[in-house]
Amino acid sequence: MRTILVSIGDELVLGQTVESNGAYMAEQLCSLGAPAVELVTVGDDQQAITQTLRRCAADADLLIVTGGLGPTADDLTRQALAEAMGVKLIENAVALQQIEKFFRGRHKPMPKINRVQALCPRGAQVLENPAGTAPGIAAKLQRAQVFVLPGVPREMQVMFQQHVRPHIVAAISKPALFTASIHCFGQGESTIAERLGKLMARDHQPDQATVGTTVSAGVCTVRLRANDQDTLEKTAQQVQILLGPVVFGRDGITLPQALLDLLQQKQLTLATAESCTGGLLGKLLTDTPGSSAVYLGGWITYSNDMKQRHLDVAPDWLEGQGAVSGPVVCAMASHAADRSGADCALAISGIAGPDGGSAQKPVGTVWIGLHVRRQSPPTQAFVCLFPAAIGREAIRDRAAKMALQALRLRLLDQPLDMLDWTPGSTAPGSPASATTNEQAPTTT
Amino acid sequence: MRTILVSIGDELVLGQTVESNGAYMAEQLCSLGAPAVELVTVGDDQQAITQTLRRCAADADLLIVTGGLGPTADDLTRQALAEAMGVKLIENAVALQQIEKFFRGRHKPMPKINRVQALCPRGAQVLENPAGTAPGIAAKLQRAQVFVLPGVPREMQVMFQQHVRPHIVAAISKPALFTASIHCFGQGESTIAERLGKLMARDHQPDQATVGTTVSAGVCTVRLRANDQDTLEKTAQQVQILLGPVVFGRDGITLPQALLDLLQQKQLTLATAESCTGGLLGKLLTDTPGSSAVYLGGWITYSNDMKQRHLDVAPDWLEGQGAVSGPVVCAMASHAADRSGADCALAISGIAGPDGGSAQKPVGTVWIGLHVRRQSPPTQAFVCLFPAAIGREAIRDRAAKMALQALRLRLLDQPLDMLDWTPGSTAPGSPASATTNEQAPTTT
Repeated sequence: MRTILVSIGDELVLGQTVESNGAYMAEQLCSLGAPAVELVTVGDDQQAITQTLRRCAADADLLIVTGGLGPTADDLTRQALAEAMGVKLIENAVALQQIEKFFRGRHKPMPKINRVQALCPRGAQVLENPAGTAPGIAAKLQRAQVFVLPGVPREMQVMFQQHVRPHIVAAISKPALFTASIHCFGQGESTIAERLGKLMARDHQPDQATVGTTVSAGVCTVRLRANDQDTLEKTAQQVQILLGPVVFGRDGITLPQALLDLLQQKQLTLATAESCTGGLLGKLLTDTPGSSAVYLGGWITYSNDMKQRHLDVAPDWLEGQGAVSGPVVCAMASHAADRSGADCALAISGIAGPDGGSAQKPVGTVWIGLHVRRQSPPTQAFVCLFPAAIGREAIRDRAAKMALQALRLRLLDQPLDMLDWTPGSTAPGSPASATTNEQAPTTT
Repeated sequence: MRTILVSIGDELVLGQTVESNGAYMAEQLCSLGAPAVELVTVGDDQQAITQTLRRCAADADLLIVTGGLGPTADDLTRQALAEAMGVKLIENAVALQQIEKFFRGRHKPMPKINRVQALCPRGAQVLENPAGTAPGIAAKLQRAQVFVLPGVPREMQVMFQQHVRPHIVAAISKPALFTASIHCFGQGESTIAERLGKLMARDHQPDQATVGTTVSAGVCTVRLRANDQDTLEKTAQQVQILLGPVVFGRDGITLPQALLDLLQQKQLTLATAESCTGGLLGKLLTDTPGSSAVYLGGWITYSNDMKQRHLDVAPDWLEGQGAVSGPVVCAMASHAADRSGADCALAISGIAGPDGGSAQKPVGTVWIGLHVRRQSPPTQAFVCLFPAAIGREAIRDRAAKMALQALRLRLLDQPLDMLDWTPGSTAPGSPASATTNEQAPTTT
């Protein structure tokens, strides 16, 4: 089954919004064994939509279209589909009832403009939208089965599951494609690829999965694809052995989840103390439902005064070595653990930019402090130097992830110097690290 | 100039990664007055890439291709371009030097696999990549000028500016398209569209900008497009007047930035106290460089123990009304202000799900507390009920944004009941709010 996904919206071709519906559907299609062959985006232009629908319908068995079903005048997908089909739009009584019902459920009258959403090309079928006002449409166009869904991600997702998925399951008979993703953090893509070596060859043996790598937000993912589960698992195992502990998880697992799982396994709790990341570390940890079993909370000590008053960071250190230094993150981590009663704590203080850098501490300099009760020494710190060019958002993101991965490695008794971005791994010499107990911090 | 953007990568058609390069380039193209007409994505399949390049080159003046230039075996864009052009790949000495130079700059030897990145179709031109190892390619294919850039967003962006932008500026003579985005938070798209009324008609007067609306992550954006700046500004003013204070900003302004600007104008400082958002509110505030002028920091009191020990929330309230209640967020907000010395504080406690809901407090119930020193009463709270169906991530995101918008409205002396998602705005009766001073909180 050849499937093409079409997204419609001026905000997409004008670059005002990132198109994310395609990725959702593409993943679903892949897991159903009918991967998409193409994703296309066009603007709110009836002629362009009509042409694209015709071109894609001639080349595909299944066409899933999202967007342009709203109530406003820039929503033109209904009209374009009718034009491509060569039929008229007519008001559908069932669709109108569904829209009216939606507003009744919210104790509101139906605004007049929403009535246009009940229009449907003659001969097409209306698809119920349980999550919003825009009904979907199912129709036949040339050789292709067409589904039109609203562009609002939540509505699209519910309707994909309810209407499109059963169609695909019924239509395909060929075995599904088996895929796996193996996620690493802390080493570059070239390093990972070199260690995988021949596994990545396109002309590999049939008893091996196809292996590729991609990088997204600092996470390097090894992607596997095979025609059967055994081949997939065999290759996955080889990848895991070649890459070792920088691999933090597989498929849907995120780095925060991997750390939370490990903490839960070891029955340890965690607190955070953040300066430059300003809450991002806590946010990443609490993205996961149930994180409260492990994560107690923390401090966002964005100002120096907050660091002094609430995490007892000595004013001498703030003035002497500065807020971005080993002694400060050591104090932040050990006091966050003490004051929260947590077994472990992570602290981050850095220069995320774009301003605030100096020759000695350029933008991208981030100190990370780790405290693990009953380990010796309990408190440890290291410094990362992220390239300033990656920008504030990426520096903060990588810093938070580096802290998570570092604690994960430490709990697994693995050395931290396997991580890139510590000066020790990009230049000769040992990593610049501060190993300290709280009273007498030292840095190199 | 008809421009088509082509993105290449299995991770994109398999839905493992969201394609974001297209949005970046589309926005740039729009601001240059040469908006893209189509965005296409295909997988790492040489035949599919070759066909897509041929089809698009026949239909466009400019083709910008991203991805598939990496050093690994699944990177096939060079090969496909050579095939589409009907020429051979040859090693380019300049490209090889650039790659070797890149690794020298990092004090590393060039891995052998990176040598393949120096290959280039005969007759095409190598484009320097100042940010990574993959050189780009410029070539002529049928009627189209083709630029091939790496898929890593940071590298693509630098190279777009350095190589593609000058080509476009030189090639177009027609006046640029003027666009504006006006952002609102706290009211639904239908409400906004009804208030805009005739402004949104497609067949509007020539002295009016084209107006459309889109919703992304809870923010409803009114998008304007005109052929001259005066028309744009006139329509922008009309939109602003029709929508009033739910408009928080224009173009690149985010909601946190709008609040930070207002606080800075009024010379007020801010602290946060977060439970269910777990640091997200702090993260959103500190996304903006320079936020330290206003934002002091805060507490992530994820556990009840943290709420009691560090924000003095009375155990009676935690046990009686529960952590998700008016008295608790009032105490969190007022104590966060007191302990940080900030003029204002925001507190959030809610049930983000998917578990933890009850009949009385379903998933999506979020209490927000506001404290503004010297206002009367200084502390105030209200409850939002977000639909559980939007999911944990969206509930946390909307809760944080609602807190930001509520404080913004309060600092502007605007009533909070203009916001949707407070029960008062979706059902008859007054909003469920707790107006309180810290000693004697009351809830309805």
